[in-house]
Amino acid sequence: MSSGKFIVIEGLEGAGKSSAITVVTQFLEANNIDFVQTREPGGTPLAENLRTLVKSVQQEQVTAETELLIMYASRSQLIHNVMRPALEAGKWVVGDRHDMSSRAYQGGGRQISAELLEPIRQCVLKNFKPDLTIYLDVSPQVGLARAQARGELDRIELEQVEFFQRTRQAYLDIAHSEANIEIVDAEQSMDKVHADIQTILAQYFS
Amino acid sequence: MSSGKFIVIEGLEGAGKSSAITVVTQFLEANNIDFVQTREPGGTPLAENLRTLVKSVQQEQVTAETELLIMYASRSQLIHNVMRPALEAGKWVVGDRHDMSSRAYQGGGRQISAELLEPIRQCVLKNFKPDLTIYLDVSPQVGLARAQARGELDRIELEQVEFFQRTRQAYLDIAHSEANIEIVDAEQSMDKVHADIQTILAQYFS
Ligand SMILES: Nc1ncnc2c1ncn2[C@@H]1O[C@H](COP(=O)(O)OP(=O)(O)O)[C@@H](O)[C@H]1O
Ligand SMILES: Nc1ncnc2c1ncn2[C@@H]1O[C@H](COP(=O)(O)OP(=O)(O)O)[C@@H](O)[C@H]1O
Ligand SMILES: [Mg+2]
Ligand SMILES: [Mg+2]
Repeated sequence: MSSGKFIVIEGLEGAGKSSAITVVTQFLEANNIDFVQTREPGGTPLAENLRTLVKSVQQEQVTAETELLIMYASRSQLIHNVMRPALEAGKWVVGDRHDMSSRAYQGGGRQISAELLEPIRQCVLKNFKPDLTIYLDVSPQVGLARAQARGELDRIELEQVEFFQRTRQAYLDIAHSEANIEIVDAEQSMDKVHADIQTILAQYFS
Repeated sequence: MSSGKFIVIEGLEGAGKSSAITVVTQFLEANNIDFVQTREPGGTPLAENLRTLVKSVQQEQVTAETELLIMYASRSQLIHNVMRPALEAGKWVVGDRHDMSSRAYQGGGRQISAELLEPIRQCVLKNFKPDLTIYLDVSPQVGLARAQARGELDRIELEQVEFFQRTRQAYLDIAHSEANIEIVDAEQSMDKVHADIQTILAQYFS
């Protein structure tokens, strides 16, 4: 059996990742492809506990290092216990966020240097990486307004707009310099965003 | 005001760290020194939550990387929110485990290479380090028998004896090659162990 592919949806809060995931999974279903869905941080019992901890507003200041380490602890559990087994069994994996989020948020947003980030990535990822990343590009203003309309904001969503501007810039820098990343203008109407995603998927499958 | 000192007690489970802490704190009290007591992992609300997660038996396999990252996430919170503020306020800190535990358990026991461990240490510790470490040396057989008699074993305490042999060896290697670490033979009677600790403290203060 050939191994599955890993498709990940990335973007700021309110970019439209959750609805984009549905477009991808419907596409896979229409093509009779078995898949599992993941979200990060989270996706295993231990990783979901870590997700709750890192996203909840704490009585204490959370250091940038703590945030980074918890994200990668969660990712290590998910890769080892869910993603690798699924891919090896021939299933596809559709991810709501993955490593690019840490590079954008903790690297760009929190300004943790690549010198510190890279060894931790290496430690956790080894050579694991997505086959296709769809990055939904949205300004913090538009994304946060959508997220706010959706409900209460978590600890990270409560950051200053400058934090998300740095995060978006890091996302764009990575998207422009690395392979297998497609950028979608996520400030378009939802219909247009979804049509763009379908075009990307159709090309990927052709 | 001069800044405080950080004394840490290290050793395998059942080495006698908890009772050794009492010897140290009584010594400080007798010398009218203000101190705070810490334990690792743990010591802040978020770090205690991480402690519970990393020590509890999970439904899933916990990767060596996850364990390492959670330990350092906890340590980052403790240093930033408790230890540095206390030391800067002139208080002493008496720690039940610190960074040497991670080097021994995750480095030695879990065999995570220094190449991966060192950047993570650097990321979290910067230049933070104990002024005095008292390492209670005990064989896994003796230590685990004592810990078992004390009560139920946690996820890490349930490891194979070979894991603790590697951990002890890593402890000894560090203790023999670095400054400000005193080794106490913790297989002696408790009275003798405590007398040795008092001698070390008296010398440190002279
Ligand atoms: N292109 C879009 N135009 C307008 N609203 C959108 C668009 N995409 C998503 N939304 C809405 O914005 C909110 C956040 O979308 P969501 O998919 O939850 O984003 P994310 O998962 O990236 O945080 C939802 O209420 C969603 O319906
Ligand atoms: N030197 C010793 N000889 C015999 N028993 C000891 C000695 N030191 C500690 N113990 C006992 O072993 C158990 C574990 O000691 P503890 O201080 O909790 O170890 P740790 O905190 O290092 O895990 C306790 O019941 C303690 O009373
Ligand atoms: Mg979402
Ligand atoms: Mg103890």
